Amino acid sequence: MARHICKPVVFHNVLGSFEPILRIADGDAVVAETVDAWGFDRAGERRHGPPNPMTGPFYVEGAEPGDSLAVRILRMTPNRDEGWTFGPVAPNVVDPSAVAVLPKRERVLWRLEGGKARLIDPPAGLAHFEAPLAPMLGCFGVAPPLGQAISTATSGAYGGNMDYRRFGPGTTAYFPVFAPGALFFLGDGHFCQGDGEIVGTGIETSFEVEFTVSVQKGRTIGWPRGETEDFIFAIGNARPLDQALQHATSEMMAWLAADYGLDALAASHLLGQAVRYDVANVFNPAYSVACRLSKSVLAALAG
Amino acid sequence: MARHICKPVVFHNVLGSFEPILRIADGDAVVAETVDAWGFDRAGERRHGPPNPMTGPFYVEGAEPGDSLAVRILRMTPNRDEGWTFGPVAPNVVDPSAVAVLPKRERVLWRLEGGKARLIDPPAGLAHFEAPLAPMLGCFGVAPPLGQAISTATSGAYGGNMDYRRFGPGTTAYFPVFAPGALFFLGDGHFCQGDGEIVGTGIETSFEVEFTVSVQKGRTIGWPRGETEDFIFAIGNARPLDQALQHATSEMMAWLAADYGLDALAASHLLGQAVRYDVANVFNPAYSVACRLSKSVLAALAG
Amino acid sequence: MARHICKPVVFHNVLGSFEPILRIADGDAVVAETVDAWGFDRAGERRHGPPNPMTGPFYVEGAEPGDSLAVRILRMTPNRDEGWTFGPVAPNVVDPSAVAVLPKRERVLWRLEGGKARLIDPPAGLAHFEAPLAPMLGCFGVAPPLGQAISTATSGAYGGNMDYRRFGPGTTAYFPVFAPGALFFLGDGHFCQGDGEIVGTGIETSFEVEFTVSVQKGRTIGWPRGETEDFIFAIGNARPLDQALQHATSEMMAWLAADYGLDALAASHLLGQAVRYDVANVFNPAYSVACRLSKSVLAALAG
Amino acid sequence: MARHICKPVVFHNVLGSFEPILRIADGDAVVAETVDAWGFDRAGERRHGPPNPMTGPFYVEGAEPGDSLAVRILRMTPNRDEGWTFGPVAPNVVDPSAVAVLPKRERVLWRLEGGKARLIDPPAGLAHFEAPLAPMLGCFGVAPPLGQAISTATSGAYGGNMDYRRFGPGTTAYFPVFAPGALFFLGDGHFCQGDGEIVGTGIETSFEVEFTVSVQKGRTIGWPRGETEDFIFAIGNARPLDQALQHATSEMMAWLAADYGLDALAASHLLGQAVRYDVANVFNPAYSVACRLSKSVLAALAG
Repeated sequence: MARHICKPVVFHNVLGSFEPILRIADGDAVVAETVDAWGFDRAGERRHGPPNPMTGPFYVEGAEPGDSLAVRILRMTPNRDEGWTFGPVAPNVVDPSAVAVLPKRERVLWRLEGGKARLIDPPAGLAHFEAPLAPMLGCFGVAPPLGQAISTATSGAYGGNMDYRRFGPGTTAYFPVFAPGALFFLGDGHFCQGDGEIVGTGIETSFEVEFTVSVQKGRTIGWPRGETEDFIFAIGNARPLDQALQHATSEMMAWLAADYGLDALAASHLLGQAVRYDVANVFNPAYSVACRLSKSVLAALAG
Repeated sequence: MARHICKPVVFHNVLGSFEPILRIADGDAVVAETVDAWGFDRAGERRHGPPNPMTGPFYVEGAEPGDSLAVRILRMTPNRDEGWTFGPVAPNVVDPSAVAVLPKRERVLWRLEGGKARLIDPPAGLAHFEAPLAPMLGCFGVAPPLGQAISTATSGAYGGNMDYRRFGPGTTAYFPVFAPGALFFLGDGHFCQGDGEIVGTGIETSFEVEFTVSVQKGRTIGWPRGETEDFIFAIGNARPLDQALQHATSEMMAWLAADYGLDALAASHLLGQAVRYDVANVFNPAYSVACRLSKSVLAALAG
Repeated sequence: MARHICKPVVFHNVLGSFEPILRIADGDAVVAETVDAWGFDRAGERRHGPPNPMTGPFYVEGAEPGDSLAVRILRMTPNRDEGWTFGPVAPNVVDPSAVAVLPKRERVLWRLEGGKARLIDPPAGLAHFEAPLAPMLGCFGVAPPLGQAISTATSGAYGGNMDYRRFGPGTTAYFPVFAPGALFFLGDGHFCQGDGEIVGTGIETSFEVEFTVSVQKGRTIGWPRGETEDFIFAIGNARPLDQALQHATSEMMAWLAADYGLDALAASHLLGQAVRYDVANVFNPAYSVACRLSKSVLAALAG
Repeated sequence: MARHICKPVVFHNVLGSFEPILRIADGDAVVAETVDAWGFDRAGERRHGPPNPMTGPFYVEGAEPGDSLAVRILRMTPNRDEGWTFGPVAPNVVDPSAVAVLPKRERVLWRLEGGKARLIDPPAGLAHFEAPLAPMLGCFGVAPPLGQAISTATSGAYGGNMDYRRFGPGTTAYFPVFAPGALFFLGDGHFCQGDGEIVGTGIETSFEVEFTVSVQKGRTIGWPRGETEDFIFAIGNARPLDQALQHATSEMMAWLAADYGLDALAASHLLGQAVRYDVANVFNPAYSVACRLSKSVLAALAG
């Protein structure tokens, strides 16, 4: 299996069925550079405008509609020493009556060094605040169905701008395939991010990302899924949070039925006492919720 | 400071300004029995009907509107060997199109033994499923403002049926005081519960609960708060989840301003990278979301 | 059947099972004065504080849980020449990003004269704006179930602060009865109001209201309903609007089944092409949506 | 100004920047055939698959990003004698607990004749039900921004599947222009439809539609707008209804500021007492709400 090095020269602000920048085989590894959410690269040069310019698409040989594409994130190495966020929190995450007293939203810079991010000009009280490196892909996914081309500001069943902090190194993401070759895109790397992406950003910077792809023939899934060392999770992307949670829960129940032999009642008894929900983002046009289950709970079912 | 033993004979299905069952002093401890959500006690006898019969109210000397009441949960000991849940998942937590294929909702029984809960008649695949003891108070709080008396099925700024799994032993809960003496109620203990209470119950059983109360004079808060060994959190109770999250976030920002000197911008930079959200319940008439922050993050701010 | 004149001396800010101010018989008429949402009466004197002080409760002989109470609003006569509203629009009815540019919310006064309301100090562009009299009861209903006592700021299955502009003279409202005697309350009259009550008020003033009551024995309904000369409608009270609409639609389908012999499929075909929805209020803790159907459509079903 | 006759041979399931089927000048009229939501034409032959195959795009000379496109619907003539709907109501418009008792969703046929639609095989109670012709365009709009191509199942700032019953003959619709030539699409005609499109369809059939286009140079708008003989309205497309209503209200306030000189406070006083909201659809991936104002109210402002 090959290991490709990809230094992109074109970028996309929409996920769609575009000309592949690379054709790769099932099992191949790729080392790809990604620019930040506004298009700034490792040298701090702007390569493309917002929103979230994508590296890709990668055409994965053998991937057909109805299959799943597994993408294992091996490594995410920030490749410059500066990142940025916005503040204060977005107006939709506080009480409507509290919005009027928020200061104006502005971009701020962070120094990235030694596995820590520090505000370059911290406000009172945050002089000692350090955010540890916990890298993640904010936006990644495949070409959507029906020949659509959809902005990287939002997300759907095909992935996209989910901004989920568990989509980092060590995680395998699964996407439904809608187009021949899947057409995988990635970008919008975050040095770290809290739940909900409530300031509208993680700490945005450019990365070198290493990942492998694998085609799961005939495995049809409804929404993005993921797997870490400790957990499996299913993602729902929609507004409001209630609907995102419904999609995520329904997808998890479909997973438990297909791969663990649990019917709706059994899955309910299990999830009822063991499920965890993560609010991935509550900022983008579609919010994202993860329905998450411990692998140790699943392992114990075998007795 | 006294330690009171309380074996209740009257129960309430609403939180309101009722005759106290006990007057206690600031700092006192109470050992109180609670019946389960349908009113069954330690002997399996029904003492009161649903919803969530409360033990209380306890009149706390010195608590006045504008203060906060701190309730430290010291211990929750299940006092019978049987619990119950419902299944399958509630229709509002899956896609509307998936509701029609769910089986009928029915009550099921669990054996509680050796710190584990086991389904008495497990469906296929769950023969080995054990849910470990992680006790919590599903419904507790104080008399609401304006002389209201509100069903224990729901929740609000005064607490109530929040069904948050971190309201267990070791946690201190804080409630705004709206009535003289605060009038504290508790009940609806769960042997354990997943996020969201998505089957509509935790594992419901009766408990012996030990707690202490403490009046925080002049500390006015807007929503219930809590503190564990590792975290502080603020709760929002409302529908939809988006609004519950708004209340929780706004309350956390008020907390960070008042006790940690962080203005809206500083609090935003901190929460943006470090906040965690928990979906406490997505079943009751008001949903509950916790906005949670690690104490270690806060401690590091001091440098 | 008697006609009672009621000049209230006590007022309630919550709907609950309080001592009746009057016992009336099935079929009786009542002429009652109501104060405005902040408690100001016909003389402009404050008789009680907010929210929405109620006249009542009226104990209706013969009304028992499981019955419905029909209240026919015969007349609403504003009894002073001044009303008030708030402005600008509430922050929850515009885009979160637009909230910061709204001016501060303030109370403004209107002159009520000759069946028109005019701003006493109109902003530029509204010098000629006249709002015609279209009176309505913002808040009315019966004692809630379970012995609850609930703030007149909100609403539920028992009615309350629904702020629906079709609850005016000529309309018959129907409420489920939860307590012996129903315990009917009314108040919060509006000179007029747009859909949604988006400034948080109608034009608030005091009224003389005349109504008749009638007990519908054994007619159990789930939510408030109403009937005008031209329409029948069912109300849902909840957040978000989606859920209020679900309650209203479900209640309308129950009505069409019980009184018009239409099963779920037939009701769907009818409503699918003929239903109207009104956004009654999108401001209060519970929003209100009306599911409305033309009587002429229903009449034509008979052929 | 020309009058074009358009009998389409290609159809699109997405709104995007595709090759125009016709280039037309500012002021031109077009008579275009549209197929129904599943692609059946006037002869009952399937010309294309779902969702909502569009006739178009029409390139309008002179339309540039930042302009608005005005589309006046002159006429909609159903061109076959059969239509179809679905039933029962969609699961998302009734209480989640009521979904399980709904019958299975199935397509049903209607006879279209003499300006009336009649169910071909009516269920009990609907033998005499006739739905009068009130034609409307369910889905129409322009190419979205950013080179996106978006499914005709949903809607956005560019229009799309709004399913609003007031988008019929006599109405002028306004769309923001995002692509050179605007690239206007239309289709998904309904013989009639209730509010909310709660069965998931209007009465779907094919049409001959006549319309004129006009470019409004430099008039930048944020969301689709419309104008009938009696009303102006602004549309918001989003989930949940609350957010759709926020967009619609914000857009109406922008309109009142730009064209009627009303600042936020004046617009609030006016809308607070005079606004109407319509629930256009509560079925599609994005719901649609119209914020509507009477032209007579606006005319009276001039004194």
